[in-house]
Amino acid sequence: MTVANSVSRREDERVAREILARLKVVVEPALDAALARVSPELHGALGYHFAGGGKFVRAGLTLLCASAAGADESVALDGAVAIELIHNFSLIHDDIIDRDVERRHRQSVWAQYGIGPAIIAGDALSTLAVQLLLERPSPARQAAATRLADATQEMIRGQSEDMAAESRSSLSVAECLAVADGKTAALLSGACALGALLADAPAPVTEAMSDFGRHLGLAFQAIDDVLGIWGEARLTGKPIGNDLRRRKKTLPVSFAHALGVDVYATLASVDAELSDEDVARITAMLDDGGARQATIDLGEDELRAALGALDRVTLRDPARAELVAVARYVVGREQ
Amino acid sequence: MTVANSVSRREDERVAREILARLKVVVEPALDAALARVSPELHGALGYHFAGGGKFVRAGLTLLCASAAGADESVALDGAVAIELIHNFSLIHDDIIDRDVERRHRQSVWAQYGIGPAIIAGDALSTLAVQLLLERPSPARQAAATRLADATQEMIRGQSEDMAAESRSSLSVAECLAVADGKTAALLSGACALGALLADAPAPVTEAMSDFGRHLGLAFQAIDDVLGIWGEARLTGKPIGNDLRRRKKTLPVSFAHALGVDVYATLASVDAELSDEDVARITAMLDDGGARQATIDLGEDELRAALGALDRVTLRDPARAELVAVARYVVGREQ
Repeated sequence: MTVANSVSRREDERVAREILARLKVVVEPALDAALARVSPELHGALGYHFAGGGKFVRAGLTLLCASAAGADESVALDGAVAIELIHNFSLIHDDIIDRDVERRHRQSVWAQYGIGPAIIAGDALSTLAVQLLLERPSPARQAAATRLADATQEMIRGQSEDMAAESRSSLSVAECLAVADGKTAALLSGACALGALLADAPAPVTEAMSDFGRHLGLAFQAIDDVLGIWGEARLTGKPIGNDLRRRKKTLPVSFAHALGVDVYATLASVDAELSDEDVARITAMLDDGGARQATIDLGEDELRAALGALDRVTLRDPARAELVAVARYVVGREQ
Repeated sequence: MTVANSVSRREDERVAREILARLKVVVEPALDAALARVSPELHGALGYHFAGGGKFVRAGLTLLCASAAGADESVALDGAVAIELIHNFSLIHDDIIDRDVERRHRQSVWAQYGIGPAIIAGDALSTLAVQLLLERPSPARQAAATRLADATQEMIRGQSEDMAAESRSSLSVAECLAVADGKTAALLSGACALGALLADAPAPVTEAMSDFGRHLGLAFQAIDDVLGIWGEARLTGKPIGNDLRRRKKTLPVSFAHALGVDVYATLASVDAELSDEDVARITAMLDDGGARQATIDLGEDELRAALGALDRVTLRDPARAELVAVARYVVGREQ
């Protein structure tokens, strides 16, 4: 039962999609204008990557946080674009690192253009994000650029821990959460903090939004891990049981381990590629051991903590209500 | 005849080496302190990379420019470290892109640790550079961070043009210079500008130093291209004739093309790997056609322009004289 599993779930989803679609219309032209500034030689690879779509959830959160903090959305537009640039920099590089040949039902950038062009295209995006925030100097923009660089470094820390985990025999739940905190939550936290910083919000508001984004990121990762094992291929864009087949050390697997069901040992005991039967057997182990439910519970707890962070401060509507709607949607997503 | 080919050449070299060695002692502990802040999972790869050595020419230029502009070297220390971080980020990523398995007579980072760890290690360095300059806010540091991001984006532009050139049949001298301007000169220019900016120098001084670095970069690239074809393997750390063997579109080759010696066509006419005889024959074509001398002349012109830029403003000694010594050394290098 996710929180979004309520009677009005479909209506909530529709509203959240509308909010994100409206914000995407604001962000996309600014993003395109920024992308036009990088080397023309990279326009092919970057145009291809961004044509793959995306809902701009992070950019949307930045704009909503600025508005909820009492400012005009437009003060946070460069911040929203910068966050989206950093997010896509990480997607492009992570696909190389994880040898993922597909993204959004199409070839990933490196699979389409080669490793070299994909590395340099990602580098251009991360540098562009900094340029965008710094070029018109102000204390708020300097603070935002600093916060963004910190979030990026945290994300890199998470990715490096994720890579190192490949050669480990098991990860504890706490270790899994630390990776998720870096890989996913740091940038969502940064997205929300940037909105507050660019709105010149008081420190407690910025902290509340930063916490909101961090808990939301952990909730998102929990549900993403559930979908990576139990999600339908049509919806996730990945083969069913993909995370198990790749022996990824996700939250459900670490929960099973903690609950006494040693999925790590089972994954390690199969030498070659996992067959459909292996995947089905291990999936059943996770279900029976309560690992799926434990991960969903964690996701719900984190969503509750995220919404609780917003309650700590006074925020402006309708942006506040829209933040709540988007948060529920992101965690309960079935897209 | 390089400018450094004077009677007192050996003495000049010794002085320049001493200046750089003194500055390295200042920079290295600050660099190590900065590196300690990135993810511990990356310490192995980064420690390996930096243990390969390096003279910290760029960091040295930043410190000397701050001092020549009248400030204490220490105001530019974070800038010097940041420049060195960006330089090494580019080395680590470029080695993957160019499939270079060796750097400084050892395996390159990706060859030793794998492509994924090398990508993420480079990403950590570029982000750390921004963090370092932004964390203690001041107008000078914000200006320096902006200038650094601009230089980084220019460098990325140069690298992307270099990659695109691989599928071209030829490059004009102007196109070769545009690539060198991005790949090499942009960061040397940024190194010098950062020293001036962090010294709160007046705009004409910052511009003069920026120009000094840019011309120095082009001079350096010209001599580097000469060494890539005619340099001794013991000194360059690369096999003799390496650039020709890799059919790189360097300045000597583009000069030969412009002078009517079509080395591009000759390089293209050999199907398989170039034999030692092929390399010797093409090298002779470059010599006879005057391409070697044209490249050396360009290098000397650019060095003269670099030193001329320093003459446009009033600078403080001994840093000013030391900048001149280091510039001559960098261009005349036989290390």
